[in-house]
Amino acid sequence: MKKCTIVFKPLGKTVEAAKGTNLMEAARRAGVFLDAPCGGKGHCGKCRIKVESGQHKHEYTPLLTEEEVKQGIRLACLTWIEGDMTVEIKEVDVVNDIMVEDITSKSKKKLVQRTLNILKSSGINIEKSLKTVPLTLSKPTINDNIPDLERVQRELKSVLGCEKISLSCPIEILRKLPTILREYNNEITLVLLKKENGYEIMNIAGGRDACAYGLCVDIGTTTVAACLVKLNTGEIKASANSGNLQMQYGGDVINRIIYSTKESGLEKLRQAIVEGTVNQLLKQMKSKLRLSNDNIVFSVFAGNTTMSHLLLGVPAENIRLEPYIPVFRNAPTLKADDISLEINKNAPMFILPNVASYVGGDIVAGVLATGLWDRNETVLFMDLGTNGEIVLGNNEWMLTCACSAGPAFEGGEISCGMRASTGAIDEVKIEKNTLKPRIGVIGNTKPKGICGSGLIDLIAEMFLTGIIDMKGKINKIIKSDSIRYNQQLGCNEYVVVFGRYTEDGRDIVINEIDIDNFLRAKGAVYSGARTLLNNVGLDISNIDKVIIAGGIGQNLDIKNSITIGLLPDLPHEKFEFIGNSSLTGAYACVISDEAREKVKEIADRMTYIELSVDPAYMEEFISACFLPHTDTNLFPSLKKVMNL
Amino acid sequence: MKKCTIVFKPLGKTVEAAKGTNLMEAARRAGVFLDAPCGGKGHCGKCRIKVESGQHKHEYTPLLTEEEVKQGIRLACLTWIEGDMTVEIKEVDVVNDIMVEDITSKSKKKLVQRTLNILKSSGINIEKSLKTVPLTLSKPTINDNIPDLERVQRELKSVLGCEKISLSCPIEILRKLPTILREYNNEITLVLLKKENGYEIMNIAGGRDACAYGLCVDIGTTTVAACLVKLNTGEIKASANSGNLQMQYGGDVINRIIYSTKESGLEKLRQAIVEGTVNQLLKQMKSKLRLSNDNIVFSVFAGNTTMSHLLLGVPAENIRLEPYIPVFRNAPTLKADDISLEINKNAPMFILPNVASYVGGDIVAGVLATGLWDRNETVLFMDLGTNGEIVLGNNEWMLTCACSAGPAFEGGEISCGMRASTGAIDEVKIEKNTLKPRIGVIGNTKPKGICGSGLIDLIAEMFLTGIIDMKGKINKIIKSDSIRYNQQLGCNEYVVVFGRYTEDGRDIVINEIDIDNFLRAKGAVYSGARTLLNNVGLDISNIDKVIIAGGIGQNLDIKNSITIGLLPDLPHEKFEFIGNSSLTGAYACVISDEAREKVKEIADRMTYIELSVDPAYMEEFISACFLPHTDTNLFPSLKKVMNL
Repeated sequence: MKKCTIVFKPLGKTVEAAKGTNLMEAARRAGVFLDAPCGGKGHCGKCRIKVESGQHKHEYTPLLTEEEVKQGIRLACLTWIEGDMTVEIKEVDVVNDIMVEDITSKSKKKLVQRTLNILKSSGINIEKSLKTVPLTLSKPTINDNIPDLERVQRELKSVLGCEKISLSCPIEILRKLPTILREYNNEITLVLLKKENGYEIMNIAGGRDACAYGLCVDIGTTTVAACLVKLNTGEIKASANSGNLQMQYGGDVINRIIYSTKESGLEKLRQAIVEGTVNQLLKQMKSKLRLSNDNIVFSVFAGNTTMSHLLLGVPAENIRLEPYIPVFRNAPTLKADDISLEINKNAPMFILPNVASYVGGDIVAGVLATGLWDRNETVLFMDLGTNGEIVLGNNEWMLTCACSAGPAFEGGEISCGMRASTGAIDEVKIEKNTLKPRIGVIGNTKPKGICGSGLIDLIAEMFLTGIIDMKGKINKIIKSDSIRYNQQLGCNEYVVVFGRYTEDGRDIVINEIDIDNFLRAKGAVYSGARTLLNNVGLDISNIDKVIIAGGIGQNLDIKNSITIGLLPDLPHEKFEFIGNSSLTGAYACVISDEAREKVKEIADRMTYIELSVDPAYMEEFISACFLPHTDTNLFPSLKKVMNL
Repeated sequence: MKKCTIVFKPLGKTVEAAKGTNLMEAARRAGVFLDAPCGGKGHCGKCRIKVESGQHKHEYTPLLTEEEVKQGIRLACLTWIEGDMTVEIKEVDVVNDIMVEDITSKSKKKLVQRTLNILKSSGINIEKSLKTVPLTLSKPTINDNIPDLERVQRELKSVLGCEKISLSCPIEILRKLPTILREYNNEITLVLLKKENGYEIMNIAGGRDACAYGLCVDIGTTTVAACLVKLNTGEIKASANSGNLQMQYGGDVINRIIYSTKESGLEKLRQAIVEGTVNQLLKQMKSKLRLSNDNIVFSVFAGNTTMSHLLLGVPAENIRLEPYIPVFRNAPTLKADDISLEINKNAPMFILPNVASYVGGDIVAGVLATGLWDRNETVLFMDLGTNGEIVLGNNEWMLTCACSAGPAFEGGEISCGMRASTGAIDEVKIEKNTLKPRIGVIGNTKPKGICGSGLIDLIAEMFLTGIIDMKGKINKIIKSDSIRYNQQLGCNEYVVVFGRYTEDGRDIVINEIDIDNFLRAKGAVYSGARTLLNNVGLDISNIDKVIIAGGIGQNLDIKNSITIGLLPDLPHEKFEFIGNSSLTGAYACVISDEAREKVKEIADRMTYIELSVDPAYMEEFISACFLPHTDTNLFPSLKKVMNL
């Protein structure tokens, strides 16, 4: 088999591949990241590259214009290698796109305060099983010549005031112990983890220099966020987030699961999240705080069921196949070393429990963080990230479901979509007269694309200004240079920002296919909420509070969200946006032992409704795929404004 | 720095080394094993090599004749590289010297039977914390869609008949679980380890195919012996032994500890015992029984304090420095993976507890195996391997000490010495008239050297026939071609076997220095026993039973041992030789949970006497370095025979 050499510019990465290899696959092997929400099926058009030279075959796609094809632009997933090639790519540099946030920021302080309030009001103690214990040992003599480990044990018994102590000591500590004792003249500090019948030594330091940190991570399908928490104070000392490097294998859980069943697919996905994403976030945070791996002695992960399986390298394929069986709800107790996490090898990992195949630990974390499980009033909790999960309930009952919304709320499978990071348009207002938009961009840079909250604004404004109708179709009668027909795709489109103002010189455009995808996503969520209400015989008016969380973005506009029929039409004071509730719940589980017990209880109490087998759901869904809905009586406030 | 290339023939191993490098060091780096009981100090003469070509420097040693030096014979430890060299070696192939024993052999059956008897008579249960549980799970459906792990848990609860079950599941099992369940149609077998609050899944197999083995290992300073035990029956299914590959770094614990303090010395010693020795024994036994690593789910190790430290890679240097502090007595619970042992990664390791720096878990194992701790009668237990440890006591009290006997009982630091393996002379009888010896050789091959029991016979016979006097000096008046003067060493020697009858064509010879070394070794043991007796105000006549164990060899002759003053002069029926009591004790700890608790209790009950600080010991020792002793009243039976 002839081997061809493929050079990826401007990175200079090179890979050998057999003739006939798919270019996307070659890029992955070269460690070149190409975004591929559709998993490489040619649907999403995100894996654009430019062939500089070299023989290749490519398949026709309406996602590229004739002009672009002439210039050598291709979709990598629809290109096959025929000879040596040189390819120019615009790598979506997820890894270097890490945002190390200012920990003095309001949002972090708010997160800490909110968590403490919730724990306090629910009577959950914040006692931690980890403690730092300074010890001064007596010097060994010929008359008091007990071994080093027993000497430590004896002193601990006296310091902790207990008769007997069962002390586990990992081999790494045992190997260090004699040297540290003698180097530091018998003055040491231990980091101890309380276990059911004793303590485990997690770390040892000479003198009084030990510090103990905990890691909490929200593993979103699209975005991964992590914090390092100083355990004795509960302060968040560093936080960072980035895209989930698994994106190159598919934008949503279904595409990831499909990829996981390919040869070594599961291992590649595991590596992408652990080595490629979490360890990279850790690296930044550790260097900022000047911590070594050993200092981080505990970790908590919240993610959906598929993400938790892939994190552990556990086969996820049965999640997708009827009767939809995950391998675990409560993951067994594992250690950081089991998944090559770059913290203290022996640090226990706590993974928030899953409820079912499509409602995972991230939602359970959210339920903890919202306090829903402990409230008298009835709360509708919506987590709008990739997919979209809903919980309805109070301190007596809880129903939950997963809506197959796909990655649209995080910009996936929308041609101009992107996640809520630097360069994303997150606010849009369209002037009634000119039909031109005014936009807000994260980081105040040139725009690159539109994130979830921006898409909601955009579609709501297009609807309110009459650019689109109830079905999401563009009104062709309107004369505006912002509205045009896309020959290639065979549909109309609206230009949000012309290329001269964008980061890469290409127009930022939303077309009717994008709008249709988005309407299906919002329809899935709204109909999911309605189905839960129907299941308990309640109405929208019975909802006391709507709490919204997730990657859809901080700047979510409630009014616009109601306008497009994503959120129920309720008074604005009933809505609350709480940001990343999954991370908040994970944080609570780092600082409180009881919180970890509580989330197991919460997961057990949640009743999962499988929408796909609910006979009324399909009808609800179809009705909800309009702007705002086929039943306009559900949106009285809008009816008044728009004369629907 | 000029690099020189050294070729080791006939193995063909090659290494690069800087000019000035010691040839012994170069050999180690090349992975060429050279025996070095003295640790490379030029004392023992065991690292003979032949220089075929190449520039080098060498130091004078009386251990080589002028003729030998002319022929290119050198001691590797006294040779330094000056240019490219070709060297011929006779590698002591410890690794391929593995003896995989016949498990139907009497000795193994005896070991099992003895252990069962001891446990039974002491009321120790042989219940095991490991069990094999076959399970048949119901098939998941949309109405019974609990996760795989919970399904296993539910079925286990019903099979084991418990309300609640806390089940630990290592990541390797979790990763396999979904596939095995579906491949084997929900019929599986689990190997479970009972823990304080639940069970841990140690292994999983499809169908009914699971089997669970335990490993027991006696880590001797010179010899390592291991068995694989089928856990549900307690049968020994394979056993093997070989030299301890650490021998190349020194013959006794002191030389090993010294080597461990050199750069990466500790790691090299750890590798030599784990990868170089135990894993090699395991490989042979696993292949014989067709087992995979996962099948071996438990392991027990017995060794002296230094061996247990080196096995774990834990610094041992403070064992040697006043006030002689080991790092641990009871090693914490570790897993096979912690030391790269090639069995089930999660298999717990139990290391028999040490008593003090120089009385280790091997002796505690021996005390368990002899039943000494539970007897009414007073027992003197002597473990005569490298070094030599003694326990005196009964079910009320136990005293123990370590005699610095060195490796002489296993042939170390004796010019013609070797361990009790194929080719070792293990029996000697000298004809009164001709003064020629008749010998017995292990494996009935041409002899290579003399092991412990052979040395005892030889020296006793030389003494009884008047070849040597009480001081071990050869009677120069005797005319025999077996007796000659060694110009080089400046002392007399006795030829046991002439070169034409030996394996390598060299004479097997014992000289006065060897005899002196051996007398010091036996003197150390006898005076140790006397010191223990003195400590409790007892006399030799108060000893009800003498139990002898250790690498000194199965064919130990009691009469000869008394003749040389190694064993106390007591009626022969009071002596019992029980072979490898350390391995027997380790075996007991594999088949019985209670035995593991018992050995901790035994170790706690043993009182260690430090001979070096006992004022009367030195005098006892000096008196005991004669044949049989300066106080012949201690050897009445001999006095009669020899008219002393």
